[in-house]
Amino acid sequence: MKTIYQGKTKNVLEENGRCYLQFKDDMTGTDGVFDTGGNQVAGSIEGAGKECLKVTKYFFEKINEAGIDTHYISADVDNNLMEVKRAKVFGKGLEVITRFKAVGSFYKRYGLYIEEGADLPEYTEFTLKDDGRDDPLITKDGLAILGILTAEEYDKIVEMNKKIANVVKDILAECGLDLYDIKFEYGKLEGSNEIVLIDEVSGGNMRAYKDGEYVKPLDVSKYLNI
Amino acid sequence: MKTIYQGKTKNVLEENGRCYLQFKDDMTGTDGVFDTGGNQVAGSIEGAGKECLKVTKYFFEKINEAGIDTHYISADVDNNLMEVKRAKVFGKGLEVITRFKAVGSFYKRYGLYIEEGADLPEYTEFTLKDDGRDDPLITKDGLAILGILTAEEYDKIVEMNKKIANVVKDILAECGLDLYDIKFEYGKLEGSNEIVLIDEVSGGNMRAYKDGEYVKPLDVSKYLNI
Repeated sequence: MKTIYQGKTKNVLEENGRCYLQFKDDMTGTDGVFDTGGNQVAGSIEGAGKECLKVTKYFFEKINEAGIDTHYISADVDNNLMEVKRAKVFGKGLEVITRFKAVGSFYKRYGLYIEEGADLPEYTEFTLKDDGRDDPLITKDGLAILGILTAEEYDKIVEMNKKIANVVKDILAECGLDLYDIKFEYGKLEGSNEIVLIDEVSGGNMRAYKDGEYVKPLDVSKYLNI
Repeated sequence: MKTIYQGKTKNVLEENGRCYLQFKDDMTGTDGVFDTGGNQVAGSIEGAGKECLKVTKYFFEKINEAGIDTHYISADVDNNLMEVKRAKVFGKGLEVITRFKAVGSFYKRYGLYIEEGADLPEYTEFTLKDDGRDDPLITKDGLAILGILTAEEYDKIVEMNKKIANVVKDILAECGLDLYDIKFEYGKLEGSNEIVLIDEVSGGNMRAYKDGEYVKPLDVSKYLNI
């Protein structure tokens, strides 16, 4: 296989015209502390890539079953590989966050108006993937004038993101976990205008709580029936 | 007159049921450097309040003439007083910025996608007035879920802000100045749902340039025919 892109936690590989994501054991964080919102590689944990892929496979299959378009084709957990349809990210990459509780950067920004942990009605917002600028928030109009998303693409992605967030939320609820917020990435399938969910769906994408206690990203799968 | 509110650069006074803004000589800034985006009082310049009111009177009268609703009634420049209709700010105060050029915080956030100084198509965005949180950017959906603005109020204010920004831009252009961006505040008239432009419209609200050189806030009026 040929590595065509090296990312912080995943590489993109190619073989016989097929495209694969290779899940690495590197984890992001800030100043050496693991933190899925972090923009640096904070270190490596043996088995982290496999764990992440196992959960990603589980959720992508559930999301596909729910009739939502994704780039996922299949996963080979033993070899840390996920076969995907080729897709192109919007701009240089976006994160789309759906929030059920006011925590994290939302609370940091808007604490003058809301208590920490208050309920939010699947509020959805976009940030630009830009390590040097701390992934800035961006509005619908901002995405349009920078040529990143049309208004129609924005609306479509908000709708998809809420649906997918609720698929994950419902699965976690059955396992006794509360989903506070979750982020996803999107792309356009190569050679078409179809918007699909891309990248991964694992503990690292979400803030999940068990009886009011934060569940660490690598511990989420312990509660799932996988 | 009775002082009913003391602000950083203006007080609110009351007499015989009428409401007045008193323009002070204090100017905002950061670490003692004047900066109209600053959230502290950086110092005082004799005559700054009068200068600010003179320009505000000029622009409010032009904006009223253009048929846009404002809280402005009249101004007594000699006494630093502006009579206004009573209005209530949205939430704890919003700033609404219309941008014709990518500079300032817009460029800081989105520099990965745009060159400094590039043209923007009257792009309009909202920030919360919150000194402790550096006036965070907020989306239309965020304003709605925090109960600050309905979707309809948001759309109405965007429309008003673009109109007002263009009124000011055209006046400045006649005087040889280029308007890069400008911010305004809005409120609801007491006892009604009417949305009006409030506060001030002076050099401190805007970034104006003359032949590519930044014009300091207190120098803007030198170019106006007032």
